[in-house]
Amino acid sequence: MLLTSDKDEYQRLIESAQLPDLEFVINPAQADLTLGEPKAIQRALPVLSKLKWAQSIYAGVEPLVDPAQRRDYILTNARGVFGQWMSEYVFGYLLFLEKRMQDRIKAQQSREWKRDESGTLRGKTIGLLGVGSIGEHLAETAKHFGMKVKGFTRASETSTQVDEYFHPADRESGGSPLDMQEQAPALHKFAEGLDYLVSVLPRIKETNKLVDEAFLNALPNQAVFVNVGRGNSVDEAALVRALNEGKLAAAVLDVFEQEPVPSDHPFWNTPNLYMTFHTSAISYPEDITKLFIENYRLYLEGKPLKYVVDFERGY
Amino acid sequence: MLLTSDKDEYQRLIESAQLPDLEFVINPAQADLTLGEPKAIQRALPVLSKLKWAQSIYAGVEPLVDPAQRRDYILTNARGVFGQWMSEYVFGYLLFLEKRMQDRIKAQQSREWKRDESGTLRGKTIGLLGVGSIGEHLAETAKHFGMKVKGFTRASETSTQVDEYFHPADRESGGSPLDMQEQAPALHKFAEGLDYLVSVLPRIKETNKLVDEAFLNALPNQAVFVNVGRGNSVDEAALVRALNEGKLAAAVLDVFEQEPVPSDHPFWNTPNLYMTFHTSAISYPEDITKLFIENYRLYLEGKPLKYVVDFERGY
Repeated sequence: MLLTSDKDEYQRLIESAQLPDLEFVINPAQADLTLGEPKAIQRALPVLSKLKWAQSIYAGVEPLVDPAQRRDYILTNARGVFGQWMSEYVFGYLLFLEKRMQDRIKAQQSREWKRDESGTLRGKTIGLLGVGSIGEHLAETAKHFGMKVKGFTRASETSTQVDEYFHPADRESGGSPLDMQEQAPALHKFAEGLDYLVSVLPRIKETNKLVDEAFLNALPNQAVFVNVGRGNSVDEAALVRALNEGKLAAAVLDVFEQEPVPSDHPFWNTPNLYMTFHTSAISYPEDITKLFIENYRLYLEGKPLKYVVDFERGY
Repeated sequence: MLLTSDKDEYQRLIESAQLPDLEFVINPAQADLTLGEPKAIQRALPVLSKLKWAQSIYAGVEPLVDPAQRRDYILTNARGVFGQWMSEYVFGYLLFLEKRMQDRIKAQQSREWKRDESGTLRGKTIGLLGVGSIGEHLAETAKHFGMKVKGFTRASETSTQVDEYFHPADRESGGSPLDMQEQAPALHKFAEGLDYLVSVLPRIKETNKLVDEAFLNALPNQAVFVNVGRGNSVDEAALVRALNEGKLAAAVLDVFEQEPVPSDHPFWNTPNLYMTFHTSAISYPEDITKLFIENYRLYLEGKPLKYVVDFERGY
């Protein structure tokens, strides 16, 4: 059962792959598989009585990992397809700032031949908060541009493009997931000397207000912060203060605590704060269909699926 | 003899390399080597009576290949150091346009949560007018972003990152350098299907008004033109017409027929035309000193220098 506004395109793409034993249904009670937007799947969960596997077309699956929801099926999300989008967005904005594009536009408007020097990415240090498949792609692009890469992650060190890894300290007891907020010393060491900080963190309780006043203070004043993860990881009031006080050069935000951002939110007119509107990555049916087909074949063979979400961990 | 405004920094950098038999002089009549800006070297040529080798700190050496000037010395220019600057500039501006950054800024100013979709570089086709060391670097970055690369060059096909090469047709008689303007059929074939056209051509007579009305007409209407080469290669009046008539999506120009651009030039307020002010690449003394040291060692050994300019060819 398809649960997405791009239903027709998905049906066309999946049908053209001629997958065995696959039938599209309209009655949710007949569906053992679904592909769609996490919110739409969440709404249908009570009637998807035979559900065995759900493929999200997004990376973020907050509505489905909510503890109030059932977890008696396999949930897979979209991974490996957003890295390139994020690289384009992140490095596009870093270059927008380094090349002083807004100043150049203003100079042109006033017919002024103004040769202020541009900055460069080369030799700069970027810090990645979160090094999953998106972080890995960002690291690759950073290396292409001659940058140094620091990574903060609780996951294993899979990307060889990261020069220096930082981890939350292990809890001696093991067991429950780490609260990254308790990890101030490691985080502040990670923040040291960064020219750019990019968060790709998912919305889980451990990431709540991770980028807080103390963390922002630990960043150099010339640093630029880019958030393409989730809004919950930022203390938004502290970020506004840091920008107003010149403790941060700029912030580029694609995600927010509340979306759409309320019209009286201070973000709209904070200096050096650039808002985009959750537009950094687009879920292309062509890309997602590839993931689905790959997983469908595994599913038929009874093998473990790829990109399985850990309900407990939340991503 | 140093002939640059960054004289002190160059002296410090070169001295720290402790090169044998090298002495800095102030009297041009004593200098057999010079390093500097092409214009400053040109002015000093009449008094540089012992000159054997001149190292330009720029790529463009127009004042020195002018036929009115003497050519009884070896001229080397700066190569291999500007590719990264050009990649940052070119892809920065392409991403600025694809990610609709100006629209997003306007939406923010009017407190509007506006989710227009961004474009992507992935799958797009870029055409490089000129495939020397800068073009090669641009091709590499394009490949990193998943693009298709077409290259137009009269040089050999050195970059493996170019998917499809186009060349001016060989003159049967051989001999004099090709006039690229006569090469309309090959050029128009190159222009077909381009999403982006980037010129890195040097100012030589064969590149005069290469990007003319017919060439602009051969480009798709959605194409973006970026010029980081020299202004002589563009028919500026034709470019203004093409933008006004919507025959081209946008133009990003760092170089111009006349610099600074006169204040009554139509470029200043042509729609979708972005002017920067010959700021795309910066000549860093650290980079140029490396080239100089490399060449100085070859010079001492009596070996052929690198990056030698062909006075006849003009670059």
